[in-house]
Amino acid sequence: MTPQRVGLHHPRLRPFLAAARNTAPPDEDHVVVEGIWALEKLLAARTPVETFLCCPELVRTPQARRCADALRERAEAAYEIGPKVLSRLSGRARPDGLLALAGLPRRAAGELEFGDRALVLVADGIEYAGNLGTLIRTADACSADCVVLVRRQVRPNHPRVFVASRGTVLGVPLVELPDPASAIAWLGRCGFTVVVAEPGASRDYRAGDLSGPRTAVVVGSEGRGVSSGWYAAPVRRVSIPMLGSADSLNVSVSAALLLYEVLTCRSRRTDGAGARR
Amino acid sequence: MTPQRVGLHHPRLRPFLAAARNTAPPDEDHVVVEGIWALEKLLAARTPVETFLCCPELVRTPQARRCADALRERAEAAYEIGPKVLSRLSGRARPDGLLALAGLPRRAAGELEFGDRALVLVADGIEYAGNLGTLIRTADACSADCVVLVRRQVRPNHPRVFVASRGTVLGVPLVELPDPASAIAWLGRCGFTVVVAEPGASRDYRAGDLSGPRTAVVVGSEGRGVSSGWYAAPVRRVSIPMLGSADSLNVSVSAALLLYEVLTCRSRRTDGAGARR
Repeated sequence: MTPQRVGLHHPRLRPFLAAARNTAPPDEDHVVVEGIWALEKLLAARTPVETFLCCPELVRTPQARRCADALRERAEAAYEIGPKVLSRLSGRARPDGLLALAGLPRRAAGELEFGDRALVLVADGIEYAGNLGTLIRTADACSADCVVLVRRQVRPNHPRVFVASRGTVLGVPLVELPDPASAIAWLGRCGFTVVVAEPGASRDYRAGDLSGPRTAVVVGSEGRGVSSGWYAAPVRRVSIPMLGSADSLNVSVSAALLLYEVLTCRSRRTDGAGARR
Repeated sequence: MTPQRVGLHHPRLRPFLAAARNTAPPDEDHVVVEGIWALEKLLAARTPVETFLCCPELVRTPQARRCADALRERAEAAYEIGPKVLSRLSGRARPDGLLALAGLPRRAAGELEFGDRALVLVADGIEYAGNLGTLIRTADACSADCVVLVRRQVRPNHPRVFVASRGTVLGVPLVELPDPASAIAWLGRCGFTVVVAEPGASRDYRAGDLSGPRTAVVVGSEGRGVSSGWYAAPVRRVSIPMLGSADSLNVSVSAALLLYEVLTCRSRRTDGAGARR
């Protein structure tokens, strides 16, 4: 059955239009996914596809047709749109005719359960969408249980978060908490050791033993670092050696060094003392 | 002596105008530096300041006045400009009245001399200015001897390179080579072990001993990784464990993990076998 062709004023197109105008969609639990590459990431993720829009005039390759067929199958609702409508919804100079609205894997803190080797990345006050996306991509690579957004400045359904995360924002659970106090309380209840990356800390990140069973790595905003609220609890402050003229690293770089140090410590511990892995 | 006030057609203003239009300045050995934060980085670096432009009507704080005084002293040539001229040259919505043209620390490969613990980052075909800047920032933090640009796609005097590098592009020597073959030949002559980050490599980056005296870390473009030319030589291929759904890390993240692994291996070696540092 061919899906119904709809115009720009159809209510299901509203979130697409809001995203195209770079205003927050009314519902921040969803993200607009555009283009074959991104939609193939969406098909591989388990997240629900709410609406699928296809402009058949622009679907030209067998790969695009296969992608469209799979999304029509998977989406709650599917519509056709004309090229003019598409041009209003697309963020691209040369759209390839496929757009979807998908659910982000957002979770309430209380919903999550953690195992013995839990790993959490806490992003405190991150300001740039590209950095947030890269943090999520690294958290995915480290198989982190979730990314916790504290004092959120960037909405996770921003198109640049999607691109920088390479689509992993569709798979990594996101938890939002308003401030360090609530994050500390929750992480404490769940038995996490909280490690804070802080350029001024005297302890080298490789010296602290990060092989504990549940570890949360906290990185702070690009301009101001982590907020002072984190120091109300007995967190483990660690620094990364800086041998040059700059006084800090990019936040995604800091996070990656710490997260991979946790993985390294854990595999070293598994393999026995002395050997590194 | 008050500097001469000049108009938009003064020849010394040409490179500023080219940068403001986001076209390559004719001379890629220079970069436009704008704003107090950036100009303080410039004052701290050793690189020459060719031209300094000041719009006194917009210089309002004691910090800005001190910065302007120091730059007038340091620059080869200093001029005053009016607010209208400034608005044509500035990349900012609210310019703070200070602009400079500075030399980038570009070097010919043959000019550089390396010590026993040399460390070089090779950026092969990097496409995004933000990533190139972050790579340079990380190279600075690791006290790398230089960053080598192979198959360059982004000009190092792009404003976003400056911002992402946090101004370290003014201090880290940059070497440009056209292709992997010339880079391999040069690194080989200088006695470097060449380590290539490659998602498919079977050797874990932490398993390979990266404590050799001279190490070059090669990272490839965002879309396609390192070019095949690198495999014409006996390079050491290493991968970073990927435990999630994505098949690669952000290039700045990969580079940082490898560069810091080199530092870790070296300090472990210094401290004796068995102990990690």
